[in-house]
Amino acid sequence: MPFEPHPDRLLPPDPGVRAIARRLYEAVRDLPIVSPHGHVDPRLLLDNEPFTDPASLLITPDHYVTRLLHASGVPLEDLGVGRGPLAEADARAVWRQLCANWALFRGTPVRYWFESELAEIFGVTERPSAENADELYDQITDRLSRDEFRPRALFRRFNIDVLATTDDPCDDFSAHRALAADPAWTGRVIPTFRPDRYLEAGQEGWAKALALLADTTGIDTAEHRGYVEALEERRRYFIAHGAVSTDHSHLDVRTDPLSSAEAARIHRAALAGEATEAETTAYRRHMMLEMARMSCEDGLVMTLHPAVRRNHHTPTFTRFGADTGHDIPVRAEFTDALRPLLERYGTHPNLHLILFTLDETAFSREIAPLAGFYPAVYAGAPWWFLDAPDAIRRYRKAVTETVGFSRTSGFIDDTRAFCSIPARHDMSRRLDSGVLAELVAEHRLDEDEALETAIELVNVNPRRAFRL
Amino acid sequence: MPFEPHPDRLLPPDPGVRAIARRLYEAVRDLPIVSPHGHVDPRLLLDNEPFTDPASLLITPDHYVTRLLHASGVPLEDLGVGRGPLAEADARAVWRQLCANWALFRGTPVRYWFESELAEIFGVTERPSAENADELYDQITDRLSRDEFRPRALFRRFNIDVLATTDDPCDDFSAHRALAADPAWTGRVIPTFRPDRYLEAGQEGWAKALALLADTTGIDTAEHRGYVEALEERRRYFIAHGAVSTDHSHLDVRTDPLSSAEAARIHRAALAGEATEAETTAYRRHMMLEMARMSCEDGLVMTLHPAVRRNHHTPTFTRFGADTGHDIPVRAEFTDALRPLLERYGTHPNLHLILFTLDETAFSREIAPLAGFYPAVYAGAPWWFLDAPDAIRRYRKAVTETVGFSRTSGFIDDTRAFCSIPARHDMSRRLDSGVLAELVAEHRLDEDEALETAIELVNVNPRRAFRL
Amino acid sequence: MPFEPHPDRLLPPDPGVRAIARRLYEAVRDLPIVSPHGHVDPRLLLDNEPFTDPASLLITPDHYVTRLLHASGVPLEDLGVGRGPLAEADARAVWRQLCANWALFRGTPVRYWFESELAEIFGVTERPSAENADELYDQITDRLSRDEFRPRALFRRFNIDVLATTDDPCDDFSAHRALAADPAWTGRVIPTFRPDRYLEAGQEGWAKALALLADTTGIDTAEHRGYVEALEERRRYFIAHGAVSTDHSHLDVRTDPLSSAEAARIHRAALAGEATEAETTAYRRHMMLEMARMSCEDGLVMTLHPAVRRNHHTPTFTRFGADTGHDIPVRAEFTDALRPLLERYGTHPNLHLILFTLDETAFSREIAPLAGFYPAVYAGAPWWFLDAPDAIRRYRKAVTETVGFSRTSGFIDDTRAFCSIPARHDMSRRLDSGVLAELVAEHRLDEDEALETAIELVNVNPRRAFRL
Repeated sequence: MPFEPHPDRLLPPDPGVRAIARRLYEAVRDLPIVSPHGHVDPRLLLDNEPFTDPASLLITPDHYVTRLLHASGVPLEDLGVGRGPLAEADARAVWRQLCANWALFRGTPVRYWFESELAEIFGVTERPSAENADELYDQITDRLSRDEFRPRALFRRFNIDVLATTDDPCDDFSAHRALAADPAWTGRVIPTFRPDRYLEAGQEGWAKALALLADTTGIDTAEHRGYVEALEERRRYFIAHGAVSTDHSHLDVRTDPLSSAEAARIHRAALAGEATEAETTAYRRHMMLEMARMSCEDGLVMTLHPAVRRNHHTPTFTRFGADTGHDIPVRAEFTDALRPLLERYGTHPNLHLILFTLDETAFSREIAPLAGFYPAVYAGAPWWFLDAPDAIRRYRKAVTETVGFSRTSGFIDDTRAFCSIPARHDMSRRLDSGVLAELVAEHRLDEDEALETAIELVNVNPRRAFRL
Repeated sequence: MPFEPHPDRLLPPDPGVRAIARRLYEAVRDLPIVSPHGHVDPRLLLDNEPFTDPASLLITPDHYVTRLLHASGVPLEDLGVGRGPLAEADARAVWRQLCANWALFRGTPVRYWFESELAEIFGVTERPSAENADELYDQITDRLSRDEFRPRALFRRFNIDVLATTDDPCDDFSAHRALAADPAWTGRVIPTFRPDRYLEAGQEGWAKALALLADTTGIDTAEHRGYVEALEERRRYFIAHGAVSTDHSHLDVRTDPLSSAEAARIHRAALAGEATEAETTAYRRHMMLEMARMSCEDGLVMTLHPAVRRNHHTPTFTRFGADTGHDIPVRAEFTDALRPLLERYGTHPNLHLILFTLDETAFSREIAPLAGFYPAVYAGAPWWFLDAPDAIRRYRKAVTETVGFSRTSGFIDDTRAFCSIPARHDMSRRLDSGVLAELVAEHRLDEDEALETAIELVNVNPRRAFRL
Repeated sequence: MPFEPHPDRLLPPDPGVRAIARRLYEAVRDLPIVSPHGHVDPRLLLDNEPFTDPASLLITPDHYVTRLLHASGVPLEDLGVGRGPLAEADARAVWRQLCANWALFRGTPVRYWFESELAEIFGVTERPSAENADELYDQITDRLSRDEFRPRALFRRFNIDVLATTDDPCDDFSAHRALAADPAWTGRVIPTFRPDRYLEAGQEGWAKALALLADTTGIDTAEHRGYVEALEERRRYFIAHGAVSTDHSHLDVRTDPLSSAEAARIHRAALAGEATEAETTAYRRHMMLEMARMSCEDGLVMTLHPAVRRNHHTPTFTRFGADTGHDIPVRAEFTDALRPLLERYGTHPNLHLILFTLDETAFSREIAPLAGFYPAVYAGAPWWFLDAPDAIRRYRKAVTETVGFSRTSGFIDDTRAFCSIPARHDMSRRLDSGVLAELVAEHRLDEDEALETAIELVNVNPRRAFRL
């Protein structure tokens, strides 16, 4: 079957609305990509090695892809998960799994991203299938071996203006620094401060993390006060290396304060392994408030990605590790949870707090009402399971009537799949063009306003929200 | 830029569906307005003074407008909030803020209401901007000074058949009575019994409210029994002055009964300042059940508007007071919370209970199933943040399949913005015409049925639900 | 008024999209019906008696119909509920209620099902009304008296390939066996194991149920161990008679394990009437885990229908019994509740677990993410209040982007209204054709893929999910 992404894809089907949407999309299609939050490894761009094969590039590391194959009966090991670099025969076998199961992805964004990537980056012109799997494998592998398919060349071709990575607070930035120091490199790649494991005193590894933090900063983290100072120190280090934001993903976003004495007490108890779960949870919530306080001081934008039950299936976690497709959302609550934080810092001119959710009910009920009052709060773009056409439309319809467009973060790809970045941003631009075109078609907005808004959503909103 | 509300605005864009929607809308466009719940001050109509300027009329008192400007960095004081009557220069400055920030409201109902009001009431023909702000200010101020823009003239021009206000149980109705006694006035303006502060024994001011209640009725409210009698007495007073409903907005809608002894005990403890939060909450829940009991006796319709965290940002509340844009919704629950009430009174012929929610999840899950069985229950119209085009469509799609159209309350504007009343009702009529047109276009309804339904939603439903 | 279901009903109104949808629908319209879960009484087909009248057939036993009439003021007794077989005059009076209140059902699926049934099965050509009620009654009654309107003839005419009933674990299958043994009968009717009342140790009647279970199996159920064995025994009996699934409808789906000792202790305490509510709830949750364990062993598919507050209005329950229209949904939670079960059995090749919800928020947040990773989990079709056109569309839009089409159960009618079966399946086919047509129109799917998917949703998905 032929395989050719349609120029009008994702635009609304009504001919009148589509004509408007096309004009809007035309104006944003080729704008540079601003990617203020994601998970690409900076070493990829530093090393600039050719990608080896389509399976290792597009399937094995991408839990969006492997999870649905797994649900359909393909074991994760057959997809190369947890097996390190794949031998050619293995990579080919993994690739065959995808092609043979191509129909599974109908109606999903994975299918859409793949279609764009395969056709527009790798020149694939046939729909993947069991029959042509090997042929496609060879075709893509051939392209990957060429210089113009190395990471840096793709970075330029993708027209990425700025790309944020996600980094451990104790990262030494060897990759970021070497990249920045490389005269052959002109792209902008910035780190993001992601301190989750340093804030979860109840999780295994916290004491070790604090030891590392002490080693890295030379500040004693045995007491609450030193620990806080060490985190502040690392934030300064991140800022010095271009970071503009911190990222937080805990089970909830409560931000209840503790007294200094209580914080000090729990810190010690947790290090001694004697804190209860209630205490370590309280400690994490207090530390989230501290993170906001630090942001008011140092200006780092805070992004919150809460309410996911990580590693839901322990046997899979034990065997294959984290980020292997079984993180499952739970209900999210923002109104009461963030109140202590917003009481203190919600109108602070230095705070930007971007709220993400996998619980769509929070969009119209909590996130939009909060972002529509507090200068600090922005409604984050649809994330993860919701980064998909219909969910993105629901998001716009859920938040716009309360906060308009200006208080939304702009699109966030949040991806570790480097080659999917252009497809993801393109999807967002098409969908926003469609949403705006509908407003024009219903005479709720004039077309000049829609055009200005479409461009701002790409060019202005992420730079404003992330202080870029 | 020209500024001219399109005659087809908010109608579905598909040409076939739009043609049907136009025919339906045509039939309801000019029907009189029934407004059974809202917050217009009756003194406005009694005094019939000219409005002074567009800022004091349209911006400063309207938290829908000020909140989004505030989120975008305009301090509330720069919008005149909490400053009393504005001097001309100040009013002009406030108006400029709106015009300069006109783009913020794109996609919001505020923008839509403003567009209708400015164009259709005040004859504005240019899109507001920083450049034309003063010119528009002068134009509107000039109109406002004319007799035909005084409140009573607008009331007639708006074609308002009945307008309900919201009133304190101890209100002496001086305004309502004077208005009713004025031979020059023929409109119908009725009060609504809103006893929230008399039912929240845990809130500051409750003892004072009970003292006022005792003063007003001559009934001793020191004991539970007298307090209940005094409330019954005031309800009779409200009914005698035309009231048809009571309105309740607490954090939840639980209605668990207390024994008489327990109610008496908590009443005394609360007056003595010795009741716990759990006790005063239980007392309020018991009193909600009492309100339903009274409604069965006196026939006042009950409307419930629960699950808002009021005055979320204490610093703003302290400085500017209530209703200043930072009430934020929380999750709502009806099924279990209302069960005690509905077990007792759900099939009582005298009870009408109209349920509103800011938590959209309750529409299909709880409100529609309840309204589809209990003769007492009506599904209230989308409220506050949800009184907006896309949210209204979601509401109809969420409730209609379970309760049809007849068990819905009809549109409720619930506004304190007098000049927005026609625009709000018009929006609702357009949207319901569109929803019905889609049912016709999908051959789920014949057009004669859709036409009858469209008219009933305006003419019959609110009168039936509110016993008007 | 004429009454003629339109051939394009429920297809999207845009002409371009509708043309695609028509082609898809054409391909599935006449496929046989697979009905793997429902509530038709097998005795209906065994006895094959003529239906007596339209009221007893279409109104009195159907709580979808009676509830909305009840909400609108028609007492349940006036609809024949709880009155046993209706005399002719009474049946006619009930029928008149429906016809006179026909307008109440506008926009509901009840109206849609009735329209299809009345027109396509009974040849009605006029819209029901108070005026023609008697005429329609006579017309339908006349048809019902003919041989081609007896249950078995209708079963053939409806083109039902397989029909599952819902049965008590101690059912002796006299009807199922007699039907299977009847040489004149060639249809496939299979039982379903529904053990709710045997698993709710805290509900009245549990001890009696266990006594019956002991009688039926000859296994002593006084101890936990024997009770579990007896349930296993009955499952084997069900499987021997063709059952492929078990069905469970409790307030929640928690599956926390108990130790054997604790289970044994609570079992004894519950039989002695000495268990607390917390204990009997814990026991039921443990037994749900046991049900999953048994399914891994014997292969019965598990279907979960949780989170309904049954018999919300006690006075109605007391007078008219269960299933009389006042079961009201509450919030549902799956992610944490099912974790213990899925940790153990989520990748077991023998387990199929089909999740249903009346809380739509769970579709995108929990059910789709679970079904998109666990091979055991399927996203069940929209159920009960959600088995309606707009809700079905929301379902597809909520789940497809995360799980595609293959991990959904296919349509489940879940009905006791025998004559509505074709209309319900037809509705689903029309809606899925429309959803797929939209994907084609937005160039998210090629038409050949949409066609294959439309056919699979009818022919493959329910057979795969239910192992038919």
